[in-house]
Amino acid sequence: MRMLINVPETVVADGLRGMAAAHPELVVDAENRLVVRRDAPVAGKVGLVSGGGSGHEPLHAGFVGPGMLSAACPGEVFTSPVPDQMVRAAAAVDSGAGVLFIVKNYTGDVLNFDMAAELAEDEGVQVAKVLVDDDVAVADSTFTAGRRGTGATLFVEKLAGALADEGAPLERVESMARRVNESSRSFGVALSSVTTPAKGTPTFDLPPGELELGIGIHGEPGRERRPMMTSGEIADVAVHAVLEDLRPTGPVLVLVNGMGATPLLELYGFNAEVQRVLAERGVAVARTLVGSYVTSLDMAGCSVTLCQVDEEMVRLWDAPVQTPALRWGR
Amino acid sequence: MRMLINVPETVVADGLRGMAAAHPELVVDAENRLVVRRDAPVAGKVGLVSGGGSGHEPLHAGFVGPGMLSAACPGEVFTSPVPDQMVRAAAAVDSGAGVLFIVKNYTGDVLNFDMAAELAEDEGVQVAKVLVDDDVAVADSTFTAGRRGTGATLFVEKLAGALADEGAPLERVESMARRVNESSRSFGVALSSVTTPAKGTPTFDLPPGELELGIGIHGEPGRERRPMMTSGEIADVAVHAVLEDLRPTGPVLVLVNGMGATPLLELYGFNAEVQRVLAERGVAVARTLVGSYVTSLDMAGCSVTLCQVDEEMVRLWDAPVQTPALRWGR
Repeated sequence: MRMLINVPETVVADGLRGMAAAHPELVVDAENRLVVRRDAPVAGKVGLVSGGGSGHEPLHAGFVGPGMLSAACPGEVFTSPVPDQMVRAAAAVDSGAGVLFIVKNYTGDVLNFDMAAELAEDEGVQVAKVLVDDDVAVADSTFTAGRRGTGATLFVEKLAGALADEGAPLERVESMARRVNESSRSFGVALSSVTTPAKGTPTFDLPPGELELGIGIHGEPGRERRPMMTSGEIADVAVHAVLEDLRPTGPVLVLVNGMGATPLLELYGFNAEVQRVLAERGVAVARTLVGSYVTSLDMAGCSVTLCQVDEEMVRLWDAPVQTPALRWGR
Repeated sequence: MRMLINVPETVVADGLRGMAAAHPELVVDAENRLVVRRDAPVAGKVGLVSGGGSGHEPLHAGFVGPGMLSAACPGEVFTSPVPDQMVRAAAAVDSGAGVLFIVKNYTGDVLNFDMAAELAEDEGVQVAKVLVDDDVAVADSTFTAGRRGTGATLFVEKLAGALADEGAPLERVESMARRVNESSRSFGVALSSVTTPAKGTPTFDLPPGELELGIGIHGEPGRERRPMMTSGEIADVAVHAVLEDLRPTGPVLVLVNGMGATPLLELYGFNAEVQRVLAERGVAVARTLVGSYVTSLDMAGCSVTLCQVDEEMVRLWDAPVQTPALRWGR
């Protein structure tokens, strides 16, 4: 086990304590497992709450701040947070304008956010929900009925977050979040397995010299194993898989995402190949983000997410954002 | 080999092409291996040029932009850039106010930046140099006479870059860079080896269940091997090693840095332990940065850098910065 941890049981709590120390601009409640904008609730603003299992950092807590999420609920590693966290988060960020739950499509998350929405509504908070299910690799998966939610989560949180910060009502923020998800598709590739602290050994076996196409962010099986491919060949497979499903008719946002252990130098090189394939296919690129944003602990590999955008969506992408992991403008 | 590359020979060029596509706000010259601020030269402003072997991304190219570096010269993986790159960079960023070379202490870098300084001065550019040598782990190392240059580079580039953007003259920018280096110390720990594209196998052998204390960012040997330790025990060793040498009498900037393959969740947890040790030792923390900024390709592990600061240095740290990897303010 090559982990920088104390004991598996305290990994999430330790991470939150360390996040609190590094980010005094956020309210990090390690006991209740909540990360909240310090200025929440913001008068008249819709609150955005997301969350999910830990191990995908900076998603979601690293996306809390002006211009993006109002609060995040981190669960145990690769395990949904519980409804109590979500209800607390909703109460903390609701200004009376309502709250949007952004939920990645995994069975536990869906059930718990559903229950939390009912509980929060009982307490008088108006709640809308949007499900993120962008991964085209497989129709159903280990923890998911339907498509898995992966990289598009970043686009949903950024664009809906920017719209909420402009003071848009819940209905419009919800509709934008849904539109971003419907306009987004992803495909991931594993070059190594992933090791959770609790298990301490790789969750699946991927021999050196092989890769797995269509992997999920918890090591869920993909489409197929192949002998090692070049960066260019991987970009061909990943981008084609996304385009076949998305069939964009306009420009796209591009996320070239690292799974955790793949060096930034390699991600930039992979981005060159992704851009080549998009150019070959005549797809215009509006904006590109390269980095490890939706990760799977120590997994080596990458994913590509494309989101077709119009002018309003580009404007929302460019809008100022001040979070630990995404930060620009103003 | 679990790498996301085409062939080892094009890793740096591919990375630069991908960086160009992702960052239209920078001038990325893949042929001449230069990354330059688009607005360079800025009238009246001292130019800051750094560089070194690739494989440490985002260092240095990810730190080019307003508030930090004017230009970066990426070499081959773990290999110094050549004087020609540095001379071109100096010419590209010199407004007549002179140029500061920020050089990590590795023999190749030192020789090449020395030669480049002479050549640039022959062309009429006033050049000052500052050597970064913050790593307390060992007195001399594989590629270094004296201490290695590691995490303090980020602090030197940020603080001197902020001062240059305020319009300070070369002498003051150089003196600040020197002061930041003299006020900084680092200590790194490897939980795994590192694999370069050219070699394709780990550069040193580190059995699972062991770690190496005092590792360099190219896998240079450290102080000792030990059986795996907890995050808290590692923080004790690393912070004590730094404090023993630095003996700060005032507040510090803290960089908790990942070597590349260590998950952000673990880095935050490690930060909690670093902050605990600092509190136990009565050291006040001015600001903390957590993330993988000065990396060693796919190495798992971490480093701690402390920089003792006064009010001016905190102000320079907080000053706006707009680079791919560090971005805040304005």
